[in-house]
Amino acid sequence: MESDDLIKAGDQVLLIDEKGKTWLVRVDVERKISTHRGELKLGGLIGLGFGSPVETHLGRKMWVLRPSIEDFIMKARRPTQIIYPKDLGFLVVRSGVRSGCRVAEAGTGSGVLTSLLAWIVQPEGHIYSYDVREEFIKVAQRNLEKAGLAGLVTFKVKSVVDGIDETGLDAVFLDFDAPWMAVENAYEALRGGGIISIITPTYNQAERTVSALADSFIDVETVEVFLRRILVRPGKTRPAARMIGYTALLTTARKILG
Amino acid sequence: MESDDLIKAGDQVLLIDEKGKTWLVRVDVERKISTHRGELKLGGLIGLGFGSPVETHLGRKMWVLRPSIEDFIMKARRPTQIIYPKDLGFLVVRSGVRSGCRVAEAGTGSGVLTSLLAWIVQPEGHIYSYDVREEFIKVAQRNLEKAGLAGLVTFKVKSVVDGIDETGLDAVFLDFDAPWMAVENAYEALRGGGIISIITPTYNQAERTVSALADSFIDVETVEVFLRRILVRPGKTRPAARMIGYTALLTTARKILG
Amino acid sequence: MESDDLIKAGDQVLLIDEKGKTWLVRVDVERKISTHRGELKLGGLIGLGFGSPVETHLGRKMWVLRPSIEDFIMKARRPTQIIYPKDLGFLVVRSGVRSGCRVAEAGTGSGVLTSLLAWIVQPEGHIYSYDVREEFIKVAQRNLEKAGLAGLVTFKVKSVVDGIDETGLDAVFLDFDAPWMAVENAYEALRGGGIISIITPTYNQAERTVSALADSFIDVETVEVFLRRILVRPGKTRPAARMIGYTALLTTARKILG
Amino acid sequence: MESDDLIKAGDQVLLIDEKGKTWLVRVDVERKISTHRGELKLGGLIGLGFGSPVETHLGRKMWVLRPSIEDFIMKARRPTQIIYPKDLGFLVVRSGVRSGCRVAEAGTGSGVLTSLLAWIVQPEGHIYSYDVREEFIKVAQRNLEKAGLAGLVTFKVKSVVDGIDETGLDAVFLDFDAPWMAVENAYEALRGGGIISIITPTYNQAERTVSALADSFIDVETVEVFLRRILVRPGKTRPAARMIGYTALLTTARKILG
Repeated sequence: MESDDLIKAGDQVLLIDEKGKTWLVRVDVERKISTHRGELKLGGLIGLGFGSPVETHLGRKMWVLRPSIEDFIMKARRPTQIIYPKDLGFLVVRSGVRSGCRVAEAGTGSGVLTSLLAWIVQPEGHIYSYDVREEFIKVAQRNLEKAGLAGLVTFKVKSVVDGIDETGLDAVFLDFDAPWMAVENAYEALRGGGIISIITPTYNQAERTVSALADSFIDVETVEVFLRRILVRPGKTRPAARMIGYTALLTTARKILG
Repeated sequence: MESDDLIKAGDQVLLIDEKGKTWLVRVDVERKISTHRGELKLGGLIGLGFGSPVETHLGRKMWVLRPSIEDFIMKARRPTQIIYPKDLGFLVVRSGVRSGCRVAEAGTGSGVLTSLLAWIVQPEGHIYSYDVREEFIKVAQRNLEKAGLAGLVTFKVKSVVDGIDETGLDAVFLDFDAPWMAVENAYEALRGGGIISIITPTYNQAERTVSALADSFIDVETVEVFLRRILVRPGKTRPAARMIGYTALLTTARKILG
Repeated sequence: MESDDLIKAGDQVLLIDEKGKTWLVRVDVERKISTHRGELKLGGLIGLGFGSPVETHLGRKMWVLRPSIEDFIMKARRPTQIIYPKDLGFLVVRSGVRSGCRVAEAGTGSGVLTSLLAWIVQPEGHIYSYDVREEFIKVAQRNLEKAGLAGLVTFKVKSVVDGIDETGLDAVFLDFDAPWMAVENAYEALRGGGIISIITPTYNQAERTVSALADSFIDVETVEVFLRRILVRPGKTRPAARMIGYTALLTTARKILG
Repeated sequence: MESDDLIKAGDQVLLIDEKGKTWLVRVDVERKISTHRGELKLGGLIGLGFGSPVETHLGRKMWVLRPSIEDFIMKARRPTQIIYPKDLGFLVVRSGVRSGCRVAEAGTGSGVLTSLLAWIVQPEGHIYSYDVREEFIKVAQRNLEKAGLAGLVTFKVKSVVDGIDETGLDAVFLDFDAPWMAVENAYEALRGGGIISIITPTYNQAERTVSALADSFIDVETVEVFLRRILVRPGKTRPAARMIGYTALLTTARKILG
């Protein structure tokens, strides 16, 4: 991990104000951003350390942070439904994906899962991301470039139902309408013991998926993950009233031989 | 990722039977394991591919898998309360820890969080793991060795309340009784914008922690994560009746300067 | 239960359209309602059976239903935070309130809990509802009148912290800022073994409440109730994404003597 | 509500110790109970007020309480899966059942739902409880007698799939394997606008049920209810780790005419 803690032109930075409102921007000498708290010239950030306070022309304080992978995910352009960090985190641990892994994924969508997987497998691993919709791949590619992760990903305009080109993969992720139709191809692409992760919105899809996994995978498990924010304020702590009650079912299994 | 897909003497392997029952064992020519499904000579596994089926002396089938980081975590010797994969996964994504990061953690406990962090930062990152209880560090060290991750971790018999020796860290994780007492030291140890993650069982601890973070950190958030298994069986799908209803509150925040 | 299944002038009715949108209205010969689906003259409902279809002047179908207690609750004028049916239902079962019970409650708020309690204790029981804010009692009274339950309730502009006038009560419900300050008065008002139910938004309030209950009550339990809607659509069933993640903590306990 | 607050021979009472452990017993002059905290002669309870303390022969304190409907439910003999208070409470509010209502239910099972419904409709309402398994009806009948509610219930050894004998009912509850097969009969038995409530363990059953309701019912909703205990202890408050993660899906709908 390079220790370049000073902001340079071209860096992606996250600005955050006292209320926690955030802006993900690219540092450009010519550019300024306008917020309800005043304007900020981005050239002025160059040479500051990450974490530094800055002031808008109205004298309102902000801080400039290094964007985390979650910031890139939550701020990405999203033409499609996204997978949430709560689900992504579970799948990273369950799938065992780590630095150096080779992973296939379908569909690319807006590249949210792609981004996280690239983040985790860097610097030597690689992601093969399939989608039949070329326009989605373009959006995802831009999102990956913004996060500085595009070099870790090969995008393919192809359906994994028609085949996965790679073999010996550590993991395969399926996040599209009919994942059961790609289970055989995922099997062929995985190394022995490799882990398949499948994201399905409905119970019906989960049923078809689990049926398709039955003969050639083991340790088949389906879970859902909930996340609730807690409003921690000394003397009056309580959970948040608003909550995302559901995103998707997460099914994982391991390839067995013979 | 090396592609050595064949089992060697000394490898840790996960045996799994048809019911999903698992055994984490080290392949040793001399050793055999005894299960309710019969005995299995471990020497016989050498040279097989991961994912292969094997048979006990009673003719019952098992498969031999490469253990995932979650297997190591869930099978670790645990003298202490463990953090669950659902919580670990969320913290990995939220903290942005990745290959190459330098991270401090306290307390070591049984090394569950240590293992996951080491897994994620490999091959070039490093974990500094603090605990005042030398006996716990010994257990953790053995757990890390079993998982092949010990080389990524420096253990320290020291309280982080008395100081963190490192600086410029990407992330700090606090998982002990009085994390608010180490917030200042964590601040000093982190690079600008670096992320602190704090695990607390009670609301009262979360209140004290959030108060301690107020001046020098921003984007302070506390969440809890729930996980529910779904029993997906075509025609009769339903969630599992048993569920872990609570493990801990997860608080994260980012260091700001000045 | 009278079997007057025909709609009369003066009845409160619930109109529901095909999308499940509802209107709670009083049948008045002179009145009509205007919806995005057209107008409906309410006089035309008189003499119809509950459950009957009617048509707006644009020919859109609606049905006319007998409002349930939940309809009255969810449609009530609410100057205050309301308690949700999920919480109310739990408290009805836990408190054992039933026809004929005598119950005190504070504060009245918008009369949501009052309405449900009156509904359950009818026809011979009675509710004593305390609030220091006279304007809230006025709103609650109107809500109770609308639901046809006002005769079962005595409203009192008084703080239960200053005393509860009744004795030998079957149950007491506390739903205001500082319920611990009324625990002693609730104790005096309850019959032996009578059940106290306390609704608190924060953990801190629950702590103070439970401490106050310690000596004179037993079987002290605090719970929270979650409710999630499931979108059941054959072939694509899934939970709803939106969910109320939190309303309040519900504490119950039983009065002991000596 | 009679104000007989003194314990008589023949009363059902709930004994509770300091730890919250409970015993539901019938006061019988001849009988004593043996607990790990010593023996207690039940005759000695006669003439005491509910809520009074008593002592075992070892000098350990207990209290004698009037059993609530939830105590009867949770202590009932249960040859079958029971419905939990969290679910029952929701259904009471949603269905609008109250004193005086006439209600049909199937299957009887161990009489848990029957007990709660009888509790709510007393003193003038009535429950018609159907089950094809005569041995279950016997168990349920004993449970209802114990709770003093048997006079409010007519048990029928009959399948509601073959017909419901009553008409003009306020509510119908279905809690058996194939509730969709009884939807037509429930429709015939309900008054206009009457509410049907259906309890199904699996998503697949809920799908078939919702399909069956589509033409003749409106306001069809399916929910699940979660309950979590909070361990409120001043200074160290946290939710309980163990939780029932799932019991059943609850579907409700209202009969429409024409």
